[in-house]
Amino acid sequence: MIVILKRRADEEQVQTVVSAIEEAGFRAHLSRGEERTIVGVVGTSPDMRPHLMAVFQGMAFVDRVVPVLKPYKLVSMEARDEPSVVEVQGVPIGPGFFTVIAGPCAVESEEQVMTAARVVKAAGARMLRGGAYKPRTSPYEFRGLGEEGLKMLAAARAETGLPVVTEARAAHHVETVAEYADVIQIGARNMQNFDLLTETGRTGKPVLLKRGFAATVEEWLKAAEYIASEGNMNIILCERGVRTFDTELRFTPDLGIIPLVKELSHLPVVVDPSHACGRRHLVPPVCRAALGVGADGLLVEVHPEPEHALCDAAQQLRPMQFARLMDELRALAGVMKLSM
Amino acid sequence: MIVILKRRADEEQVQTVVSAIEEAGFRAHLSRGEERTIVGVVGTSPDMRPHLMAVFQGMAFVDRVVPVLKPYKLVSMEARDEPSVVEVQGVPIGPGFFTVIAGPCAVESEEQVMTAARVVKAAGARMLRGGAYKPRTSPYEFRGLGEEGLKMLAAARAETGLPVVTEARAAHHVETVAEYADVIQIGARNMQNFDLLTETGRTGKPVLLKRGFAATVEEWLKAAEYIASEGNMNIILCERGVRTFDTELRFTPDLGIIPLVKELSHLPVVVDPSHACGRRHLVPPVCRAALGVGADGLLVEVHPEPEHALCDAAQQLRPMQFARLMDELRALAGVMKLSM
Amino acid sequence: MIVILKRRADEEQVQTVVSAIEEAGFRAHLSRGEERTIVGVVGTSPDMRPHLMAVFQGMAFVDRVVPVLKPYKLVSMEARDEPSVVEVQGVPIGPGFFTVIAGPCAVESEEQVMTAARVVKAAGARMLRGGAYKPRTSPYEFRGLGEEGLKMLAAARAETGLPVVTEARAAHHVETVAEYADVIQIGARNMQNFDLLTETGRTGKPVLLKRGFAATVEEWLKAAEYIASEGNMNIILCERGVRTFDTELRFTPDLGIIPLVKELSHLPVVVDPSHACGRRHLVPPVCRAALGVGADGLLVEVHPEPEHALCDAAQQLRPMQFARLMDELRALAGVMKLSM
Amino acid sequence: MIVILKRRADEEQVQTVVSAIEEAGFRAHLSRGEERTIVGVVGTSPDMRPHLMAVFQGMAFVDRVVPVLKPYKLVSMEARDEPSVVEVQGVPIGPGFFTVIAGPCAVESEEQVMTAARVVKAAGARMLRGGAYKPRTSPYEFRGLGEEGLKMLAAARAETGLPVVTEARAAHHVETVAEYADVIQIGARNMQNFDLLTETGRTGKPVLLKRGFAATVEEWLKAAEYIASEGNMNIILCERGVRTFDTELRFTPDLGIIPLVKELSHLPVVVDPSHACGRRHLVPPVCRAALGVGADGLLVEVHPEPEHALCDAAQQLRPMQFARLMDELRALAGVMKLSM
Repeated sequence: MIVILKRRADEEQVQTVVSAIEEAGFRAHLSRGEERTIVGVVGTSPDMRPHLMAVFQGMAFVDRVVPVLKPYKLVSMEARDEPSVVEVQGVPIGPGFFTVIAGPCAVESEEQVMTAARVVKAAGARMLRGGAYKPRTSPYEFRGLGEEGLKMLAAARAETGLPVVTEARAAHHVETVAEYADVIQIGARNMQNFDLLTETGRTGKPVLLKRGFAATVEEWLKAAEYIASEGNMNIILCERGVRTFDTELRFTPDLGIIPLVKELSHLPVVVDPSHACGRRHLVPPVCRAALGVGADGLLVEVHPEPEHALCDAAQQLRPMQFARLMDELRALAGVMKLSM
Repeated sequence: MIVILKRRADEEQVQTVVSAIEEAGFRAHLSRGEERTIVGVVGTSPDMRPHLMAVFQGMAFVDRVVPVLKPYKLVSMEARDEPSVVEVQGVPIGPGFFTVIAGPCAVESEEQVMTAARVVKAAGARMLRGGAYKPRTSPYEFRGLGEEGLKMLAAARAETGLPVVTEARAAHHVETVAEYADVIQIGARNMQNFDLLTETGRTGKPVLLKRGFAATVEEWLKAAEYIASEGNMNIILCERGVRTFDTELRFTPDLGIIPLVKELSHLPVVVDPSHACGRRHLVPPVCRAALGVGADGLLVEVHPEPEHALCDAAQQLRPMQFARLMDELRALAGVMKLSM
Repeated sequence: MIVILKRRADEEQVQTVVSAIEEAGFRAHLSRGEERTIVGVVGTSPDMRPHLMAVFQGMAFVDRVVPVLKPYKLVSMEARDEPSVVEVQGVPIGPGFFTVIAGPCAVESEEQVMTAARVVKAAGARMLRGGAYKPRTSPYEFRGLGEEGLKMLAAARAETGLPVVTEARAAHHVETVAEYADVIQIGARNMQNFDLLTETGRTGKPVLLKRGFAATVEEWLKAAEYIASEGNMNIILCERGVRTFDTELRFTPDLGIIPLVKELSHLPVVVDPSHACGRRHLVPPVCRAALGVGADGLLVEVHPEPEHALCDAAQQLRPMQFARLMDELRALAGVMKLSM
Repeated sequence: MIVILKRRADEEQVQTVVSAIEEAGFRAHLSRGEERTIVGVVGTSPDMRPHLMAVFQGMAFVDRVVPVLKPYKLVSMEARDEPSVVEVQGVPIGPGFFTVIAGPCAVESEEQVMTAARVVKAAGARMLRGGAYKPRTSPYEFRGLGEEGLKMLAAARAETGLPVVTEARAAHHVETVAEYADVIQIGARNMQNFDLLTETGRTGKPVLLKRGFAATVEEWLKAAEYIASEGNMNIILCERGVRTFDTELRFTPDLGIIPLVKELSHLPVVVDPSHACGRRHLVPPVCRAALGVGADGLLVEVHPEPEHALCDAAQQLRPMQFARLMDELRALAGVMKLSM
């Protein structure tokens, strides 16, 4: 941590900073420039850093406090120096692969999810997605079938062999969801539901962690660190669009962040184009872009009959659209030497 | 709901829209302009609206779908036509009042919370705030004292008579928190934790609902509707700053939204300046601005010794600062004919 | 235009709206629902629309005013129903092509620009970019060589045959720039410099119009309409990243907007990845993503020796990086049946 | 400037940084921590800083580059250590005052501007605003009366004695505008129109510089530095709302930034509530908030008959509304010991 003092800071103020550092058990490293004094803090521990930083920020003669170390460790690239592959029942997500997870927004009936599973498998998807506990922004909307829905997903897995990705909406659902799911999904609005993160981490199951729609990369990786700090490193990050001034799309797919996240963290990253685009004909271009930018896969919504879907009717791909998209993606993945 | 078709939409496409409306049990009202056809949907029910809207948005020949009615009802101004007053143990929040809630960010010890309670009461605060279950963005930070902290708050209330506002971080904490709290706070990161909203609604206790830092006003009011739809209308909205491109402050206090929210909803709205400002010397001006813009009160952090605070050390006001601020606010409130 | 009244609007207020419409020379089309009255405005003219809209928005009993027609015409897809190809000295930009424009951020010397031109031509770029009038956010930075720089660009064109894209920073530069340039670039910060737009439109020369970093798509297309309304339809749109809460990258490349803009407008759209990424190793992934998402080309910064560049040293590609990138892009373009 | 290397940076990479610093004529100050090496750059000059920063950012083994000094000087608080008062024909803007500038959005006719001037003077405004060169986002809207409008403003000044604030839209208008105006206004969309800033700076006349709606505080102050670097320190900053994800208001008034800007710069800051609010009944609360937060004044739109205004009809205050608002503001200013 580096403390930059204001230009007129006097000797007494410099000593106030130095004392606070030494009182906390660390060493101060002074650099007196012509214009400003800068104090480096040497030897901090991770649990003391946020506190110390806040103390300095509260001093009126401090211009800025600059952290040197990242506030996450286990999920950082520096912890491994090479990207991880997360394996889900034999299906890999990570370098060398472009793994497509597909299925309906919500599980609506046994027939619907079974048809969807067959369709996405035939087109080349490697996992099945579908929500049984749906977070809905209004209390008047369909909230999912709950455990019944999980059973339908399990039946679809039994027939098709596709591992199942499904969401846990609250900490007290985790145990039930973990019984049926191969990957537990954490939704964007729950990215900082810290009790949910902790519970999910404890299951040891692979977790798909969506980025909050206004979360910085640092906040996202700190959320992943919650899961990792419970001993669970099977984490798949998922970029699903961010909220910006631009409301033409529901959310802005933040594709440029992918190469940056892969530089900061060893975890694989997939892209969910469906929630950002909001309308189905915009989804395939964003899928191709996700491949181009270096994502490790996709989480995409496909519904046998989108116009009768109980949620997100506008954005779910039709089976034929999805099959065509997968053909295109396979050709592009070939050029980029990725297996699908 | 109004469906605006693209210019080249042909008769068959118009009929597709009309059929979808009639199939759902509603009536279509056509308006054929020179340039476009517009279809009004008459007689929709609230649970069908989001679904129908999505269906139309998924049609390639539809330009836009415009909702006419708001997706929230109980909390809307149209439900009451005059602003509500929420009463907490005899302390009113609503028109005619400017109610200040103050106290430390986190409960740290019996002595700390008791001193804080005395200090804020002496300066004129009407309720005591303090967190026992703290949401922290990193797993390595102090997460609060839990039920022990709640007991300390109750002790401070017993001595000072100040009602207590404290946060429930997860649905499974609600029962415990409700035992001790006079107002249950829902944090910004939990604004769309729908299970927590529902549980809190069920307690019947007053709820202070912070706005998510990237939540639209509509999303905020829909979150309030979750609580109201459980039969609990004792809701206090709390604006605490939004995330923008501007990172000079931790968050941008969105004061301009206050008069607008009061036009859309009958619920009272208070402002939390502490989390947005991030540094204590910026807090008083934002408090004065909140009063000027028409907020119903404040939720402000005050700590007996901020430099030893276990969280948010930079932004908590010192007792003397708070007392001076309260004097200023009282003078301004007098001009605006508000009781404090 | 559709005027949605508030629920309690009475008959007199409805008549106020109707009168305002008729006074302006248009017809009112009333639809009285159970909950609200909606008034359609029929027969408006483009110059009256913004005014009328503002009048209704100023009425306290009006809930919302919804425009039906877009505020741009000549550049809209509805004006042509198929995408345009803009030709620059025989080089096409539009459907079927992926056209790469490359070169240094700023023209620094005859040798530098000549080397850059040879390098980008050898790698397959179809046009040369380079700035002679540089907009700089601080008055203490290098502002370009002015007309001397334009002459160096012309010399590079004479040798390599590459058409030249260069920026006009102010209306009074347009005449000089137009003498040398094949395409006049309008920078992001000048997207709403309306006098510059008008002047550039009048030259009849192809214009590359960058999107302002906080401009909505509608504002961008209205800026293009300024150029088009001077009779100049040779407009190439350029997405260069938008400003969001996320400051990890300098700007967020808004790739998802590309398919949407191509639905709204017939104009071709290229992507500038350099200014968004800010660091050169992040540029190639965003270039591949731009191809995948359906952009018509790229505007990318390449410098013979980036570490000695007088501006944007961090983001300009080295010649070898650019050559490798072009190889990759050619392979991907082949799959997508695009000529480069 | 501080260069923070990545953890695995080796000795050769450290030397690359050191050499680049020494080559540029400065000194390197190394600090080797357990986890990272940090290199301070001592003795830089303002024109070399942005270049050097970019060079380091372009190095793959550099984690981050942190500037120590601000990129603006003349306008910074450190240049004066106390706030400035700008005087316009005897009317002061700065500490101790709350100066209200009011008038119509656009000058429409001699009668309109004369009536407006009388009305705002009677209510207590100290200067008259009105646009003769209007920036309009669409080419089909009213662009102002040009020099004729300036003459009408001059006539209104002659009668009422109110100094006149009016906008210059392009560098080539500055000379004409300067002949008539007492304060030259630079619009938000022109904040980074660098040629306009330079020209306006050269006139020596007071300048009112609006903040771009997505400009950081640093960019805003660098724009002010353009004017100051021409020897003109008569600069009034004007916050007019920023663009955020929240589209309920046209723009989000960024009031929280005011105390921060006053800490960073000695220049006075006024608030324009009209463009942010968009609807007139929302304007008065934001005016009161601006006073509370410590702004030095207001720039507010008032029109004799807003419903017949040629632009911004929805947001201009009626004369009676303005008079009532001024009464309220005077009472609040009294409490805060400010002259109006």
